[in-house]
Amino acid sequence: MKYAVKSYEKKGGVSRGPLAVCLLSGGVDSLVTAAIAIEDGLEPAFLHINYGQRTEARELRAFNDICDFYNSDKRLIVDLGYFKKIGGSALTDSSIAIPKDTVSTDNIPVTYVPFRNAHMLSVAVSWAEVIGAFQIYIGATQVDFSGYPDCRREFFDAMENAIREGTRPETNIKIVTPIINMTKSEVVKKGLMLNAPFELSWSCYEREDRACGRCESCLLRLKGFSEANAIDPIMERP
Amino acid sequence: MKYAVKSYEKKGGVSRGPLAVCLLSGGVDSLVTAAIAIEDGLEPAFLHINYGQRTEARELRAFNDICDFYNSDKRLIVDLGYFKKIGGSALTDSSIAIPKDTVSTDNIPVTYVPFRNAHMLSVAVSWAEVIGAFQIYIGATQVDFSGYPDCRREFFDAMENAIREGTRPETNIKIVTPIINMTKSEVVKKGLMLNAPFELSWSCYEREDRACGRCESCLLRLKGFSEANAIDPIMERP
Repeated sequence: MKYAVKSYEKKGGVSRGPLAVCLLSGGVDSLVTAAIAIEDGLEPAFLHINYGQRTEARELRAFNDICDFYNSDKRLIVDLGYFKKIGGSALTDSSIAIPKDTVSTDNIPVTYVPFRNAHMLSVAVSWAEVIGAFQIYIGATQVDFSGYPDCRREFFDAMENAIREGTRPETNIKIVTPIINMTKSEVVKKGLMLNAPFELSWSCYEREDRACGRCESCLLRLKGFSEANAIDPIMERP
Repeated sequence: MKYAVKSYEKKGGVSRGPLAVCLLSGGVDSLVTAAIAIEDGLEPAFLHINYGQRTEARELRAFNDICDFYNSDKRLIVDLGYFKKIGGSALTDSSIAIPKDTVSTDNIPVTYVPFRNAHMLSVAVSWAEVIGAFQIYIGATQVDFSGYPDCRREFFDAMENAIREGTRPETNIKIVTPIINMTKSEVVKKGLMLNAPFELSWSCYEREDRACGRCESCLLRLKGFSEANAIDPIMERP
């Protein structure tokens, strides 16, 4: 942690370049994506979405810790609690079990929240239009989660087109997906290179006190760190 | 009112055909659009969105009255109160005045809520995917409100494409915009033909006790009824 902070300060704190809305769930992917936005010379306006997921409170803590780390005062927390009303996903509906000790490879995972990224992007676009940001950074990846239809670049291209049609003519907002073709270990490596504060992040779908190490998200994260020959600072060691 | 109810009952109540999500704000346009969905042989699943607009409570009453009128138990009320946090529109930001005695013709009206229809459609899509509806009816019109970029058919076409890319492969959801090329008086005429219960609807942007008759939305509504040679049942008469 010390190393990361020091190295970050050396770079002179958060860039005060043009604003970019950065979706920041608090997990590894969104954290590294934000670090890339800063590397790209942009000032992140951090957006966090609660959508009734089981580990909502823990993710929010990760979000705030990461914003603090980057000395950012541009943060918006939006509550899409209505996802619970809509149901249809293991992440928001407690009657559907979260798979353990397995990573889905075929079909759509039960953790798929129907059309979730469209909701998140819509919020990001509205905020971007009001604050004058022209880019939205989102840490989607189609490598590990190819089962989520709204994590594919084809979807983002289509949304970009919808954004162009549905906002003011002078508004020109791009959806930037810098890690979309990276494996988890490439994401981890990129984050290590940029001194992203992994120790502040949270990924577990199941628990809030310590990472369970067994849910889909923990397994992917562990695999990523292991393949990157790194140690995950939030995972309990035996 | 009696006439409308009677005539509706003659048709045998709400169709029990395939489900269609009907966005129902409670205004004239969404009411007539819902009536058209029923005419099309579909069973409406009524969706109402609160987004922090000034007349939220009154619109919600209109929504429930209309659902009751159509004997529908399929209703979902979703709160997008975060629009107030995002700001940027006279409808959700009380520091921006709502124009009076004028209907915008040029540029984007100050009542434009950035990218609002994308949020509403995203909710509609998620719900549609969970309940198995293949159509979303939305009462957008590009004739009177051509100033709202997200009310144009080009936007809906782009969103339809994003929906196709962003949902399960087997999901095929169409956005139906039956009144998009109608003037307000054509919408009123269509509604009268279908015995839509206009007396239960609400359109005023400004007041909740009685329609102000002076805001953009009231003026358009009055003009529509007047050109259709009809009397608006909710407007105070001198």
